[in-house]
Order: sequence, then C-alpha cells, then structure tokens
Amino acid sequence: MKIISSKDNPQFKDLKQLAGSSQARRRAGLTLLDGVHLAQAWLQHRGAPQMCIVAESALHHPEVAPILEQCERSRVLCLGLPDNLYNAVSQVENGVGLLLVVSTPNPKAPQALTESAVLLDGLQDPGNLGSVLRSAAAAGIGQVFCSAGTAAAWSPKVLRAGMGAHFVLDIFENAELELLCADSRIPVLATSSHAAQTIYDCDLSGAVAWLFGHEGQGVSPHLQEAASHEVVIPHLGEMESLNVAAAAAVCFFEQVRQRTVGR
Amino acid sequence: MKIISSKDNPQFKDLKQLAGSSQARRRAGLTLLDGVHLAQAWLQHRGAPQMCIVAESALHHPEVAPILEQCERSRVLCLGLPDNLYNAVSQVENGVGLLLVVSTPNPKAPQALTESAVLLDGLQDPGNLGSVLRSAAAAGIGQVFCSAGTAAAWSPKVLRAGMGAHFVLDIFENAELELLCADSRIPVLATSSHAAQTIYDCDLSGAVAWLFGHEGQGVSPHLQEAASHEVVIPHLGEMESLNVAAAAAVCFFEQVRQRTVGR
Repeated sequence: MKIISSKDNPQFKDLKQLAGSSQARRRAGLTLLDGVHLAQAWLQHRGAPQMCIVAESALHHPEVAPILEQCERSRVLCLGLPDNLYNAVSQVENGVGLLLVVSTPNPKAPQALTESAVLLDGLQDPGNLGSVLRSAAAAGIGQVFCSAGTAAAWSPKVLRAGMGAHFVLDIFENAELELLCADSRIPVLATSSHAAQTIYDCDLSGAVAWLFGHEGQGVSPHLQEAASHEVVIPHLGEMESLNVAAAAAVCFFEQVRQRTVGR
Repeated sequence: MKIISSKDNPQFKDLKQLAGSSQARRRAGLTLLDGVHLAQAWLQHRGAPQMCIVAESALHHPEVAPILEQCERSRVLCLGLPDNLYNAVSQVENGVGLLLVVSTPNPKAPQALTESAVLLDGLQDPGNLGSVLRSAAAAGIGQVFCSAGTAAAWSPKVLRAGMGAHFVLDIFENAELELLCADSRIPVLATSSHAAQTIYDCDLSGAVAWLFGHEGQGVSPHLQEAASHEVVIPHLGEMESLNVAAAAAVCFFEQVRQRTVGR
C-alpha cells in the first residue's frame, strides 16, 4: 500500500479532480464508491476495483481492514491518505474513510425490450433515481434505460441512494426511449392519473416495461403516446399524485405480488 | 400591500431569520411555504396565511397575482420585496417569487390509535419524510405520529417534498410512539425482512398503523417489539431492502388495493 502525504502529489490531484467533477469522471470512465456497504457490494457483484483509498484513521477499522486486504491480495492499487487529504476527496461527511475507484460499467444496450425493464425519461433528483434503482433491483427487474436528460446514474449521490442496486442491474444511459417503445416486444406501461385501467386490472405476470418521467413535468407527451398502456394507481386520499420513486415502488411491487401470489 | 426596500427594515430582518433558522421558526410557531403549488394547497385546505411575500418581478405573474389578490382580500399582511431582498429569504433557487408565512399546525394528539396512521421513529431525510407524508395522504391515511428524533415535519424541505400532503394530514410531532403502540386499539405493523407474514397475507381492510424507522438503523428494537405484527414485503431480486419511503408506499397502497379491489 502506498501512502501519500502531500497534496501536491499528482495521483492525489487526479483523485481530487475525479471526486469533485462529474465531467472528469465521465472522461475517465471512472466513478467513486464511498463507504463499506457499497464497497462490499461492488466486490461481491463486480470483482476488483481500479483503486482502493483509505483514510489513515480507518486503516484498522474492523470493516475497512478486510476490504483493504482483499484489494491488496487482488493487486489493486491501494492508497493511504492522512485524514485531512482523505476528507478533501470524500464527499461524505463523517464517512468511514474508505473509497473505491471503479470503472463505470457501460453495458451494450439490447436492440429491443424483451424482459422486464424500467424506462426513465428525464428523472432529475439523485435520491429519487437511486430509490427507483433500489426498488427495481429488489423487485427482480434487471434492466434500466435512462434518457439523455436523466440524472447521471453513476454519480456518487445516486450510488449512495442506490445502496448497491447499480451492481445487480444493467443500466443503459443516453437511451433512445422512443425507439425502444416503438420496437418493444413487451407492454410498455406509463402511469397517468387520467387512465381508466388500474395497475390491478393489468396482467403483470409476464415481462413489462415501466415508464416514468420528470418529477414536475412527468413523461414527455410524445413518449407517453409511444407507451402501449396508460395505467393509474388508484388513490383514496385528496392528494393527486405520488413522488415518482414511491409510484415506481408501488408499480414494481404490484408486479411482484402478481408473480408470487397471483392476481 | 407594503413594499420593503431596505435590508435594515425590521420586518425584513425577522423574515430572513425565520427563513434561515429552524429554531426561529419553532419559537415563533411559524413556517414558510415556497411557491405556487404549496400556497394554493394551503389556501384550499387551511385558509388564510399569516403573511404573503412576493418578489417584485413576480407581482404580475399569472399564478402569483391571483394568490396575492386573495390574500389582500382576506386582509393578510402582504409584503413586496425587490428581487435581491426576496432571494435572500427564499431557500428555493429559481423559485417563482412567492412565499407564504403560516402558523405551524399543532393539533392535539389523540389518546389512542383508532384510525389508520403512520408512526415514524427517527426518520432522518427530509425528502423521505415528505414522500411518506405524500403517499399517506394519497392512500387516505389521516394521522402521522413522529417521534422526537424524526426530522422536523414542517421544515421548508419536507414541505416541498410533501407537495401539500401536510395540509390534509394531522401530523403529531414529538409523539410517544411506545405508549401509542401499547394502547393501540388497532394492529400496529412493523416491516421486517425476517418476518414470516407478508403484507399480502395480512388483512388490511380495516384500520392499521404502519411503523417505520431510521434510514440506516430501522425501527428501535423496543418499538419493534411493541408492534403487534411484523410483516415482510416479499422481494424477487438480490437487494435486501427498499428505501423507507418506497417501502411505505408499497405498504400503504397494498392497503388501498385490499380496500378497493379486495384481497
């Protein structure tokens, strides 16, 4: 393990830029995972990272030390940083003192929708995006397609909210949602408060694609039209709509219910 | 309407303090609603605010002007601020330029749980809390009890995420959740990944209370024991858990499904 103690070290400067700039991360094809939970999930599902960064005060932390050991065994570049340098890199307040640098997965998108999927059209909030990914992964959905206008799925904020969901999903960014809808071999369902059909009326026992949009504006009108079904989540109260991540969870788990319990 | 143009105006200074300090808001028993949607929802459900603040550039905005008019008709104190002063008060970037100051509702808590409710034990994230309130209101649940350690329900961030749900709910802060569970006349359901009973096995057609906890630590062990039922949301994927607001939405809407469609 290499100890860096100067803020002028070029490796440290690269790292700091990577942590602070989404553009630098995109250019390098790398992202940062902060904390024990994300690191463990990455190692479990995706194998070795590019780099392992540990704060000096965390070197003997009972959860950090085994991860560091595992990285060293796999000949991953491991850097130790004095706490003041570490804190200049980590975006998490009171974090544990462990960061992995990993290659941002960039899987090849399938030509057509054939298995259950989520299509996201301009979703903005990193917390919402992370929650949608987490719910999709828990519901056994394997593919997520994000339009160019959707928040960056591999940003540290979305990764934190996703709690490791990213690593069990195939996430396709800059996806052409309209083409996917047009060529889909499975039903594409968009939620709408004006729809006549409820999610409970729908047969969700097979594969379906769920379409969700921007927090304020919803799904773009041309995409809404490209969906094969409009469905409503029936409400009992006076509120007209749900948070988009809450609505997504209700839909995904109605699909789980139909698959496990039946209609 | 009164125009304030100096940052040394005492009314402006009070307002700035109120906007910037949760302590000041608590002491005054007031909170701030930012934007057209929250203002309309307040006027619809709760009537007149204490004060209406409009940025000069928003005075003739087609959605702001009628609200200002309605406030003036109700003899509400209306203040116009030059945009630079307004922006020093508003916490929203690129907001529309409308703020209401309202009395924070503080309803008297019922002695026992008798109707469907949500109990929140140490929920931390304002976005999650707002989403839970929004889902509860949409599911027709009327009461929300927050432990002393839960995020402040009437903070501007939670209000924004709640999208007006606050105004159709009775929200009881600093609630003694353990007493409520002990004396409850209805089932109190806590979610747990280890539970044998699923939410689909449960009869949710009557009133129930849902118990949710801290994002990381969940419900405190003594409260978890005080719940009458532990239930699980069955998963199909590899993720072990959902975001708490997503889990709450799934539970609330399984209750809606059973009430509208049957079991």
